[in-house]
Amino acid sequence: MKQFIDENFLLENDLAKALYNSNKDMPIFDYHCHLSAEDIFNNKKFDNITRLWIYDNGNGDHYKWRIMRASGIDEKYITGNATDYDKFLKFARIMPNLIGNPIYEWCHIELRKYFDIFDEINETNARKIYDLTEKKLNKLSARDFIKKSNVSYLFTTDDPLDTLIYHEKLENEKLPFEVYPCFRGDNLIKIDNPNFLSYIQKLSDITNNKISNINNLKISIKSRLSYFIRHKCLAADLGIDEYFPYEILSDSEINNILIKRLKGLELNIKEINAYKTYIIKFLMTEFANENIICELHIGPLRNVSKVNFNKLGRDSGFDMISDQCYISNLAKAFSDIEENGKLPKTIVFPINENDYDAVLSLLASFTSNKKGFMQLGAAWWFNDNYDGIIKNLTKQANYLPLGNMIGMLTDSRSFTSYIRHDYFRRIVCSFISKLVINGRYPNNMEQLDSIVKNIFYNNSKGFFLKDGQK
Amino acid sequence: MKQFIDENFLLENDLAKALYNSNKDMPIFDYHCHLSAEDIFNNKKFDNITRLWIYDNGNGDHYKWRIMRASGIDEKYITGNATDYDKFLKFARIMPNLIGNPIYEWCHIELRKYFDIFDEINETNARKIYDLTEKKLNKLSARDFIKKSNVSYLFTTDDPLDTLIYHEKLENEKLPFEVYPCFRGDNLIKIDNPNFLSYIQKLSDITNNKISNINNLKISIKSRLSYFIRHKCLAADLGIDEYFPYEILSDSEINNILIKRLKGLELNIKEINAYKTYIIKFLMTEFANENIICELHIGPLRNVSKVNFNKLGRDSGFDMISDQCYISNLAKAFSDIEENGKLPKTIVFPINENDYDAVLSLLASFTSNKKGFMQLGAAWWFNDNYDGIIKNLTKQANYLPLGNMIGMLTDSRSFTSYIRHDYFRRIVCSFISKLVINGRYPNNMEQLDSIVKNIFYNNSKGFFLKDGQK
Amino acid sequence: MKQFIDENFLLENDLAKALYNSNKDMPIFDYHCHLSAEDIFNNKKFDNITRLWIYDNGNGDHYKWRIMRASGIDEKYITGNATDYDKFLKFARIMPNLIGNPIYEWCHIELRKYFDIFDEINETNARKIYDLTEKKLNKLSARDFIKKSNVSYLFTTDDPLDTLIYHEKLENEKLPFEVYPCFRGDNLIKIDNPNFLSYIQKLSDITNNKISNINNLKISIKSRLSYFIRHKCLAADLGIDEYFPYEILSDSEINNILIKRLKGLELNIKEINAYKTYIIKFLMTEFANENIICELHIGPLRNVSKVNFNKLGRDSGFDMISDQCYISNLAKAFSDIEENGKLPKTIVFPINENDYDAVLSLLASFTSNKKGFMQLGAAWWFNDNYDGIIKNLTKQANYLPLGNMIGMLTDSRSFTSYIRHDYFRRIVCSFISKLVINGRYPNNMEQLDSIVKNIFYNNSKGFFLKDGQK
Repeated sequence: MKQFIDENFLLENDLAKALYNSNKDMPIFDYHCHLSAEDIFNNKKFDNITRLWIYDNGNGDHYKWRIMRASGIDEKYITGNATDYDKFLKFARIMPNLIGNPIYEWCHIELRKYFDIFDEINETNARKIYDLTEKKLNKLSARDFIKKSNVSYLFTTDDPLDTLIYHEKLENEKLPFEVYPCFRGDNLIKIDNPNFLSYIQKLSDITNNKISNINNLKISIKSRLSYFIRHKCLAADLGIDEYFPYEILSDSEINNILIKRLKGLELNIKEINAYKTYIIKFLMTEFANENIICELHIGPLRNVSKVNFNKLGRDSGFDMISDQCYISNLAKAFSDIEENGKLPKTIVFPINENDYDAVLSLLASFTSNKKGFMQLGAAWWFNDNYDGIIKNLTKQANYLPLGNMIGMLTDSRSFTSYIRHDYFRRIVCSFISKLVINGRYPNNMEQLDSIVKNIFYNNSKGFFLKDGQK
Repeated sequence: MKQFIDENFLLENDLAKALYNSNKDMPIFDYHCHLSAEDIFNNKKFDNITRLWIYDNGNGDHYKWRIMRASGIDEKYITGNATDYDKFLKFARIMPNLIGNPIYEWCHIELRKYFDIFDEINETNARKIYDLTEKKLNKLSARDFIKKSNVSYLFTTDDPLDTLIYHEKLENEKLPFEVYPCFRGDNLIKIDNPNFLSYIQKLSDITNNKISNINNLKISIKSRLSYFIRHKCLAADLGIDEYFPYEILSDSEINNILIKRLKGLELNIKEINAYKTYIIKFLMTEFANENIICELHIGPLRNVSKVNFNKLGRDSGFDMISDQCYISNLAKAFSDIEENGKLPKTIVFPINENDYDAVLSLLASFTSNKKGFMQLGAAWWFNDNYDGIIKNLTKQANYLPLGNMIGMLTDSRSFTSYIRHDYFRRIVCSFISKLVINGRYPNNMEQLDSIVKNIFYNNSKGFFLKDGQK
Repeated sequence: MKQFIDENFLLENDLAKALYNSNKDMPIFDYHCHLSAEDIFNNKKFDNITRLWIYDNGNGDHYKWRIMRASGIDEKYITGNATDYDKFLKFARIMPNLIGNPIYEWCHIELRKYFDIFDEINETNARKIYDLTEKKLNKLSARDFIKKSNVSYLFTTDDPLDTLIYHEKLENEKLPFEVYPCFRGDNLIKIDNPNFLSYIQKLSDITNNKISNINNLKISIKSRLSYFIRHKCLAADLGIDEYFPYEILSDSEINNILIKRLKGLELNIKEINAYKTYIIKFLMTEFANENIICELHIGPLRNVSKVNFNKLGRDSGFDMISDQCYISNLAKAFSDIEENGKLPKTIVFPINENDYDAVLSLLASFTSNKKGFMQLGAAWWFNDNYDGIIKNLTKQANYLPLGNMIGMLTDSRSFTSYIRHDYFRRIVCSFISKLVINGRYPNNMEQLDSIVKNIFYNNSKGFFLKDGQK
């Protein structure tokens, strides 16, 4: 029996240990997260473990919020006005029931890594852990977490309207890691969003370009994309909710749809999807032209509880996984883009792991004879757990060269979530070692070590950085 | 190599054995089965193993019927007029081919538990097993099976029109287990059912309330629900075939749809779905108001072979798994109910295990800050097998606190199916023990033992019984 | 640690080894492949390993093409005009990155089995392997590969218009294996195919029957089917792309749709699906009448990259997996056929493994009380890998008698793909042995050995050959 989260955690055999130990200190290329450049610039400090982990002035980790709610904890102790300690106590109390849940493992690993605390999180230890972490948080700030995690590149997630002021300021800091913006285009796509009009107005203002038709809009988008690229942006993210749309209308019809919407009129579903299809294709073509990576996050259903959306707003733990069929839409869109322009290097993250096979078979059909050109994202959001990672790796290996995989991302709002990379890396080493141990791959250490290094770091660095970039 | 179904069956290590052995005698809370209250009241006896297992006056286990048909056995030996022994002989003959099938394991476990017979079921042993079980069945009756299985609560499945006469009679018996009715509302929903009109007529009669519009209908439904609750009903079941509908029309339009149908006119699919959506939402709101649990069984396609439906009727082994997308419908319906009334405590049973992720992510979005309020049902019907149970537990653990899971149900028509609880319990112990052995959870016996006790029995008892109820 | 692909490859314990070793020499019944009868008749030789494995005058293994493209290899070195050696060198170079990919394992097994070469395929060994195989290919031809693989029956895939001239010629050869045609009816179904008109014209010509309406068409189809059956055809294949359609119109409407299409007019999606549904049902009924097996391959999306389809044509590695819901369509079509005629013995191959549960539950509803009448195909195309085969067997066992399974097919264009049977057989032995070792099936060697023999060969032989046929 292994000790709880010991040094050989998730390393199932000696080969896995060897592969892990020679490569565990590789840096992290975190190509998608939700950390705040402002917090990094200000080197933000956290008063206590509740502020760091659970809730801090409107922000926090909605993974934990969900599991707290499901455990019967009153909202007062989650996003409400209970004291920080009481919130943590409530959280500690439910932990033992989370057997097999990634949050259980992550939290304990985070305590070990960043606080040298090896206690089980439960009601009994809550006070001790709270006090110890509070003391240590006195000497730990945002940048410390990043440094301690050995991060070398970090992509934040930024709206096209963002000024990137903190990215600018960070450029002038001497830091052992790079913080680049990522162009998150969702608000350009979501024409059915209630605040689409005000968004377009702001886009007009910031680009000094009155947007009255589709051509104006495209000019403003290009302008913002250039702005991002001038600020070292290497990747663009598109969150495509529920399903990937595909509805083709003529350019002039698309223009009319936009004009109709700008007049404040309501669109039907066909119009909405036609506009979305058009803009997604336009954006992806632009990303290809600018040689930046496209990250497609497909399928979440967001804010499904109207009651709670009205109370707590978006990103509050009321999102879920959709089950729609969209793969032929995605294939048609990719084919159109390939035919009429060119495809960008793309990472597809399906929210529903049922879609791995279809998506991977699609990606292998659009590789454009370029190594690693199309990637399935690592197990993401709801899938980011032990079994989800193994399923993801298994599918990756069956459809694409696993040796080309660009590895893990955090997708997190928390500075201590970097341990997810270590979690992922341990599983990768066990996954690979078992192929060898079962006689499915030769015991060629040089080759294995190179594959591990590449998945841990080299592939993502090569994938995102442009030629000649350090 | 383990012996075939020995005492350590499915227990993969010492920790699993320890957890199982200290808790295997916990009682069973069977919150959904298809046993007959009449049979329990009459303490029904079975002439022989064929009557108990395969076919008895129109009833029987359609799981076995299907696998017999697939094995090439003529219907005469299944539901036909062959002798009971010949039916069993045919069944015994196919058993060896069922390697890896749950029926193979279940049957042998049932022979061991209820008859102390340890022989392999095959052609050679058929006579011996038939004769031995026949002899023992002389001294075993319905209540013996239930007692021997250590059942403490048992929910039957009852149509709203049922008189519950046998439940009434059972209340007056001194029994070591409770038999409660469950309100199965399918016939209220299925407006497209050919006998919907006669069903509504009977509902009118039994509630002494002429049903000519939607308000009358709702009054009659409430009346029957109250009747059930007076008979200790703690749960309501809704079987939603093929997919969960969501189509919204105004109250007066719904009323018109009902009136149209009551006139004998045909409805289109939009009307059917609008009515169904309306009634499901009404029923779930009522269940919440009455504080009883809602069990949603979503997705079967029933009676798919017209030829065989005409020959053998419903529940004859011609049902299957659907693959429709319905999760956004379910989310919208839940959100509406939450917004306009309140959600009941709910257990969702998706017939297609592909839906686990989407359903679990939905449930975690509607927990209403109540512990265990939303549950994914245990692996059910086609999924009730070794791999299905492990997949179910794995997914449960990743999305919700596994420690809150309400455990197993039988969903069976057979008095000997209670061994499925033991089968499930062994897998739970191995599942949990492996998390510990792999260092993913601490080796804290007290905590582990408490989790096991809760999943085996305490959680379901706490979930279904109302405050103060024994 | 096991040696890389040693004699006990994939055999996880002594029981698995015993089962495998007593049955590994059973012949192969390959009931679906894409080998060319002409090549077999001509006893085709291959100049070198590139011609055998990668590309040879327009033909080749598009599995390898895809993974080469995804690895960044220029098309010149795949289907282009680079030298054969350079193509192989490029392929060898990417191999180490294909850890966990079936192609990695298959290629090494093929080198071992047909060439006695035990080297790792990589850049260093490329020259040596190329030269050695070239030398050995001097003495190896098409029939040698088949003989060396111990194939006893081999079904090619043939268009209804094919003359079957090489099958005729092969009948007169004394060969230790039988080569039978398979009636691949796709072109009869695909009324939306651009060359449907010219296809129907050729069908008219070859059957000497002017096709101007649906009745003529059916006469011509029957005529070709009879022709195939006279040439020993035992099976028909239908490739149903994207999803299984179900749209019912009257016979005269179907006739009008065909006439409309024959006039060169465009059809809408409803008309297309109605025609397809009608013809599929007609074909399946005919297969049943003629007592030949129907193999349904459901769900691929083909030629998804328009750019590459225009460059390289069909079957070039630009096909993928669809995610459509079609199971209720399939159930309705089966039910109609059963009601109005009779169902043929059928094997369903869903391209998306998510569909296994729904498909298996459907098959078990349409067994017509005949043993093995409805089969889920073995893990196919994208699913034909280690994990895919285990998933397939697990699902087979849970829904149908695994002992009746008809085993493996190659579905390959390559003469060396027969090693996939051995790969499959090893997994079957491990799968079955683990059920025994875990106490889920008795350690009854006679019974186990019989099950293995049946899955390896006897079941498929019994399934396809007609009574009295050798």
